[in-house]
Amino acid sequence: MPYINIKVTDELVTREQKQKLIEGITRLMVEVLNKNPDTTHVVIDEVPIDNWGLSGRQYSEIKKYKK
Amino acid sequence: MPYINIKVTDELVTREQKQKLIEGITRLMVEVLNKNPDTTHVVIDEVPIDNWGLSGRQYSEIKKYKK
Amino acid sequence: MPYINIKVTDELVTREQKQKLIEGITRLMVEVLNKNPDTTHVVIDEVPIDNWGLSGRQYSEIKKYKK
Amino acid sequence: MPYINIKVTDELVTREQKQKLIEGITRLMVEVLNKNPDTTHVVIDEVPIDNWGLSGRQYSEIKKYKK
Amino acid sequence: MPYINIKVTDELVTREQKQKLIEGITRLMVEVLNKNPDTTHVVIDEVPIDNWGLSGRQYSEIKKYKK
Amino acid sequence: MPYINIKVTDELVTREQKQKLIEGITRLMVEVLNKNPDTTHVVIDEVPIDNWGLSGRQYSEIKKYKK
Repeated sequence: MPYINIKVTDELVTREQKQKLIEGITRLMVEVLNKNPDTTHVVIDEVPIDNWGLSGRQYSEIKKYKK
Repeated sequence: MPYINIKVTDELVTREQKQKLIEGITRLMVEVLNKNPDTTHVVIDEVPIDNWGLSGRQYSEIKKYKK
Repeated sequence: MPYINIKVTDELVTREQKQKLIEGITRLMVEVLNKNPDTTHVVIDEVPIDNWGLSGRQYSEIKKYKK
Repeated sequence: MPYINIKVTDELVTREQKQKLIEGITRLMVEVLNKNPDTTHVVIDEVPIDNWGLSGRQYSEIKKYKK
Repeated sequence: MPYINIKVTDELVTREQKQKLIEGITRLMVEVLNKNPDTTHVVIDEVPIDNWGLSGRQYSEIKKYKK
Repeated sequence: MPYINIKVTDELVTREQKQKLIEGITRLMVEVLNKNPDTTHVVIDEVPIDNWGLSGRQYSEIKKYKK
């Protein structure tokens, strides 16, 4: 009966990537914890880059200097 | 002082339905736990159906075969 | 497929009260949103009263003056 | 290694306000808990006013009568 | 910069199982989303079985009849 | 009406530190967003160090090598 919530910055995560995350995490729950996949829920929240802060700064600012 | 967070798939939940959820949950907190409604917060998050996984698959895929 | 998380102060919530909350919220999801109870998860987190703040003060402090 | 999640009603929070929240909260974690800012994450979720309930009513309704 | 929160029933999850979950989920974030493991946080919350509800019933009740 | 949830490793956070976090975050909400402190809730979750992962490893492991 696990519930897994992923918070990730909203940077063009594709439908296929989401499917892979859901599949991979569900498989982990089955293999490591012997959970039933039919009661395993995975929810992905995509967070705008202005709304995520790290080291005291918005990720939208951090990104500018990463390139 | 309860805080209740509802995660639900984003499938045209109406304003009236949201009001009923907020009202019903707040009433439960008052009746069951004797809480003050003025400090009872309810927050509804609507999750895109590509972002919710069950049984290792995206809900957008599951929906196709439910009909 | 809703997931509902309740945060409530840890003040001797009984097993029966928890059961009533789970039952009542699940019924709301069925009646208001037509959800399947078998995919409706409710998780209750009990928070120590030192760890909950309101109006800028710990609830353990607020409680002292409520009586 | 703290992670801080802010839920706030979606009422035109500006980029500058978000930056101030991220900066202020990160500073608190450093000053009060001696945390490393480089592992301090702050995530802001803006919630539509129809989706936030207080006192059993939607905030969109409460707002009408506040003016 | 993902943050992943796992809610799982508190049923003797071992230290080794927790390590496998953390490792497996972090690897997924790197492989699927190309994330930096050094900003990937995984937090596991173990929920007492009286506090988790499914199908309108406490998991502690459901468990009795599963055997 | 903000709700703020802090997840922090469980490493002897004192009552005074919790009070400072609650006070500081509430003040930020008032100063930056003009929020009412009486509807500002802060909830602190202390997470066992075996249950927090960073860089794919449990924090309890990381700590051993930090000294």
